[in-house]
Amino acid sequence: VSDIRPIEWETDHLRILDQTLLPSIEEYRELRTVNDVILAIQSLAVRGAPALGAVGAYGVVIAFIQAEREQWTPETLGQNIRNLRDARPTAVNLAWAVDRVSRYLGDGIQRILDEAQAIENEDREANLAIANNALTWLDVNYQKPSYRILTHCNTGTLATTYWGTALGVIRALHLAGKVTEVLVDETRPLLQGSRLTAWELEKLGIPYRIQVDSAAAGAILGGMVDFAIVGADRIAKNGDTANKVGTLSVALACKYAGVPFFVAAPTSTFDQSIASGNSIEIEERNKREVLNFGNIDVAPIGSNVFNPAFDVTPGSFVTHFFSETKDAVYRGE
Amino acid sequence: VSDIRPIEWETDHLRILDQTLLPSIEEYRELRTVNDVILAIQSLAVRGAPALGAVGAYGVVIAFIQAEREQWTPETLGQNIRNLRDARPTAVNLAWAVDRVSRYLGDGIQRILDEAQAIENEDREANLAIANNALTWLDVNYQKPSYRILTHCNTGTLATTYWGTALGVIRALHLAGKVTEVLVDETRPLLQGSRLTAWELEKLGIPYRIQVDSAAAGAILGGMVDFAIVGADRIAKNGDTANKVGTLSVALACKYAGVPFFVAAPTSTFDQSIASGNSIEIEERNKREVLNFGNIDVAPIGSNVFNPAFDVTPGSFVTHFFSETKDAVYRGE
Repeated sequence: VSDIRPIEWETDHLRILDQTLLPSIEEYRELRTVNDVILAIQSLAVRGAPALGAVGAYGVVIAFIQAEREQWTPETLGQNIRNLRDARPTAVNLAWAVDRVSRYLGDGIQRILDEAQAIENEDREANLAIANNALTWLDVNYQKPSYRILTHCNTGTLATTYWGTALGVIRALHLAGKVTEVLVDETRPLLQGSRLTAWELEKLGIPYRIQVDSAAAGAILGGMVDFAIVGADRIAKNGDTANKVGTLSVALACKYAGVPFFVAAPTSTFDQSIASGNSIEIEERNKREVLNFGNIDVAPIGSNVFNPAFDVTPGSFVTHFFSETKDAVYRGE
Repeated sequence: VSDIRPIEWETDHLRILDQTLLPSIEEYRELRTVNDVILAIQSLAVRGAPALGAVGAYGVVIAFIQAEREQWTPETLGQNIRNLRDARPTAVNLAWAVDRVSRYLGDGIQRILDEAQAIENEDREANLAIANNALTWLDVNYQKPSYRILTHCNTGTLATTYWGTALGVIRALHLAGKVTEVLVDETRPLLQGSRLTAWELEKLGIPYRIQVDSAAAGAILGGMVDFAIVGADRIAKNGDTANKVGTLSVALACKYAGVPFFVAAPTSTFDQSIASGNSIEIEERNKREVLNFGNIDVAPIGSNVFNPAFDVTPGSFVTHFFSETKDAVYRGE
């Protein structure tokens, strides 16, 4: 996986690995307009909160270049950047990165590009720091020779710019010889677990089994899991954590069974502007994601669907947050 | 749905609706040998604990006819009946019905057929009694004018011989004008919720929305559900309930949110011979159910899978059991 670069800036455009086609097809796409970027984000060709931060940052660079090429008015540029910022509502990293880079729009292409690259580099460093902090914490507080780990969705290289968040922790544990098995929730509806996480674990040589999401509770209560670890899309001041739908079920089962439940996320995912999860907007996505599979209808035509992309886990369910700073973040109860 | 007969005895064979092809194709199959019956059970062409009882009962009749036709020894007949009894391990109804009909093997075809038909008729009556008892209980104890209901898997006509268990309760509530909406868990891996339950609700004109299984917890904690109701495959003496994988997650969320969680099942599903859920064998099924969708691979080739068909919900999580008898069954805590 080390050589996989799912997001790469190339002179005047962004090159991304189209994650909708994995694991069958490894195909790259070039993003040259703001609409290219928005479409890639909304179709989940690129996804994962930290990766969305980097893509949002480079998206501002693309907007700047496109504005010059197409002689946009400042209003048109502003509107395009707002559209980019709002491409998906739940992950805070996207808006955070767009805002951070947009501050330098008056300073020319080099300054903007520098800021976008700084965001990418900081995320790469954060990935490693998160993993290091997690390993230290586990050594001090848990001290098992090897772990059976449950994870949900994809939080690896494909969701970030380097090792990943929760999956980066698993990768570091594996390098230390401390992973017995990873139980991978398939993560309906779009199967980021079975399509993406399993693909990464396979490449890394880490032992894993895939399970349907609803098998997680039985595995946790049945004593098959030493801890669960997930990423996050937005974390409120009280620790309430928005993450891929299904995270809450994992947390509830861990809480009941007394199994540690960890969240791994860079500080850019912590939203100090909201007091609790009640203020987090939950994106509802298209019903086709649930009703169709390839070309197969799996429900009566015209069925209605409730398709939230995320849920909110109460902060009190989180045993510990792993971040790149050791003390700056909420520590759970 | 009233005219749908997913299981029907016809002179010398059993006619079943092949549920693996729904909702796209409504196709019937004729079962004329014990192996036909076992294959139909194991492929889930027919499923649902009460339906498995009826199919097991008629399966003994088929075994008897086949034994005469093919001049089996008593040993061969006995072995075939044991294979039928063990076709799936978790639902108690299958073994219970096979044993009940087998007692009359010495009494000739008519007596065996009578017993099988008695089992079917009792299940039909139980369906209605369960629904009546549930409506009375809700009127006395809950008293809402209309309910938003969450259900998991399929427990309707397709899982029984008539109205269904949990879905029979919903059907009766709908006839009384008391159903606002049913949230239908799609029920991975084989999608009995989106393929079968939604198909039945659509035919009955009951409003519903399909959701991925892992959306259930967010819906329950988010106040979208007045109660959850499910069926059961086996209920231990202490109320521990084996049911389709994912039931436990629904129950955990209901418990945390203070939302009533009901189990509807005929007395044939209550296994007084086991003290707790620890004694219930959980069937693990083929990994292809999780890794493939039609012809599409949704995970790296060769991935390992944990694919339990069921989980066990602690009896203390069940607000009330609805059965055809009012008092004979465990009432939860």
